[in-house]
Amino acid sequence: MAAVMPVALDAMGGDFAPKEVVAGAKKAFEEYSIESLLVGDEAILAEFEKGLLGTFHASESIAMDEDPAKSVRNKKDSSLVRCAELVKNGTCSATISAGNTGAAMAAALFKIGRIKGVSRPAIATTIPIVGNHPLVMLDSGANAECQSDWLVQFAQMGSVYSSVRYGISKPKVALLSIGEEPTKGNPLIKETHKKLAEMENKPFEFIGNVEGRDLLNAVADVVVTDGFTGNVALKTLEGSLKFFMKMLLNIMNTNDETKKAQDVLLNYLLPVANELDPEATGGAILLGIDGISIISHGSSSARAITSALRVADELNKADIIGRLKEAVN
Amino acid sequence: MAAVMPVALDAMGGDFAPKEVVAGAKKAFEEYSIESLLVGDEAILAEFEKGLLGTFHASESIAMDEDPAKSVRNKKDSSLVRCAELVKNGTCSATISAGNTGAAMAAALFKIGRIKGVSRPAIATTIPIVGNHPLVMLDSGANAECQSDWLVQFAQMGSVYSSVRYGISKPKVALLSIGEEPTKGNPLIKETHKKLAEMENKPFEFIGNVEGRDLLNAVADVVVTDGFTGNVALKTLEGSLKFFMKMLLNIMNTNDETKKAQDVLLNYLLPVANELDPEATGGAILLGIDGISIISHGSSSARAITSALRVADELNKADIIGRLKEAVN
Repeated sequence: MAAVMPVALDAMGGDFAPKEVVAGAKKAFEEYSIESLLVGDEAILAEFEKGLLGTFHASESIAMDEDPAKSVRNKKDSSLVRCAELVKNGTCSATISAGNTGAAMAAALFKIGRIKGVSRPAIATTIPIVGNHPLVMLDSGANAECQSDWLVQFAQMGSVYSSVRYGISKPKVALLSIGEEPTKGNPLIKETHKKLAEMENKPFEFIGNVEGRDLLNAVADVVVTDGFTGNVALKTLEGSLKFFMKMLLNIMNTNDETKKAQDVLLNYLLPVANELDPEATGGAILLGIDGISIISHGSSSARAITSALRVADELNKADIIGRLKEAVN
Repeated sequence: MAAVMPVALDAMGGDFAPKEVVAGAKKAFEEYSIESLLVGDEAILAEFEKGLLGTFHASESIAMDEDPAKSVRNKKDSSLVRCAELVKNGTCSATISAGNTGAAMAAALFKIGRIKGVSRPAIATTIPIVGNHPLVMLDSGANAECQSDWLVQFAQMGSVYSSVRYGISKPKVALLSIGEEPTKGNPLIKETHKKLAEMENKPFEFIGNVEGRDLLNAVADVVVTDGFTGNVALKTLEGSLKFFMKMLLNIMNTNDETKKAQDVLLNYLLPVANELDPEATGGAILLGIDGISIISHGSSSARAITSALRVADELNKADIIGRLKEAVN
């Protein structure tokens, strides 16, 4: 029996690193027996972690605003780069970072590499749907310009991810477009529509185009898009939900009467807000990399890190990389 | 002094036509002295309108799901086509339809034509911002694929529209992208960024890129995008606000206690909901057409039609077409 490998956790990445990152790792170990290897400056880590979890020294770290490719190339002893190497050399089962997204992508791509046959890895995000399993949307920003063959692979990979994470046996896959008819959209979407419709023996059901308003409607399990459109849609969604929450809290804090109403409603609002909270979904995954690489939100709290560790553990146990290899070849 | 021309109103267009359309026209006349010419089947219109407003007979109408170009070409006596002709021949000051959006665009393009020098007309929508004037976003769906020169014109035209409608002397214009830096985005956006940044003597301020999350933030007065991305963003925004409203109403209807809280909060929520209601903003405008052409939501109520008529009247009085001609030439 193979020894269980720890998850390589970028302890220096994110707005609240290393404190929240380490706290999340501790919780994942204590409550779910998921082991992390904390990668970062050991002198700093020693303040936060005393013997519960293993550490791996990395003398450098990559800041949020550093150039992704350049920083990965130049900072060979950065926590992010070391995390990727620990996956590549078989020491760790997955890598998680809440740091610089572009650098995490570059590290995964340069140090772990692509699954054979994959043209371009994509960022798959999970959009929480009230009363349903989350929607998988990809690409959410790795590739600002795409070709139709890449989008076909995104459909294949997103479908595997939806199956593995949410137990959907034959996920419904849709293309994000500007009308439901196959003739609606830009040339990329029309071409991809044709290819997906004609594909035989698909392990997923291609349900055609969906529109922006369908992203919270639970009509699809997987929504495929180029990284530019996907990123705009995702941030529009995040922005509008944040705006609405803020507006509602403002209104509920108007006076004593509204505050009383707030006391009543919060009991019902909080579970829903909790369900919609991106922190609970465990971050985005880079699909197409030959190893599990999870990118968490820069503002990740301990809770978000624990979620990400649980997702990494689950995906590893389900052999998602093996299943992705089958799907694209 | 030139006689005041009426607005050509497609009385047969929209989910609630002709009833709501006619009701909206009556209200605009009675309350704001804005005159409409009701275009549609006079036998049907006679049931709804008895002598207050003028009518213009059109024997055909174009359904919501008809092919835009084909229906405009074949249904020469349709209300939509007649409306466009009434603007072209100088009988009416503007055309408004809540019918088939694509057909309204085709009718405007084929029958009224473009402003000289305009490469492609764009759909400009106004996104309500709480506590601020609305944001103008274009293109919201006319052109699924764009060139950078067209986007530069969208910036010029959107800026005129923001000035005329909201009195902004030097509108802040932004590009919708996936990061604030000029290097972020797809080739179209990067190229347009360069052109807008280098443009001299602009009547607007180019503030660079904004992201999807900034659409409700009042950072820009005008957001420029290709019609594919713009349509996805707009529908994502509409979908998420609708989702949130529905969720909130569900929660507030849980039991007697939450219903009491609802009674308190609705007094504060309704004014905000009202401010966010697309019905209040008067529909989208086709910028770049050599005449005022307003496209209202298919689900337009009388209130939405009245708003659209007020916008048409205001834009006509401000000579928006003359100002657009100056801006692009």
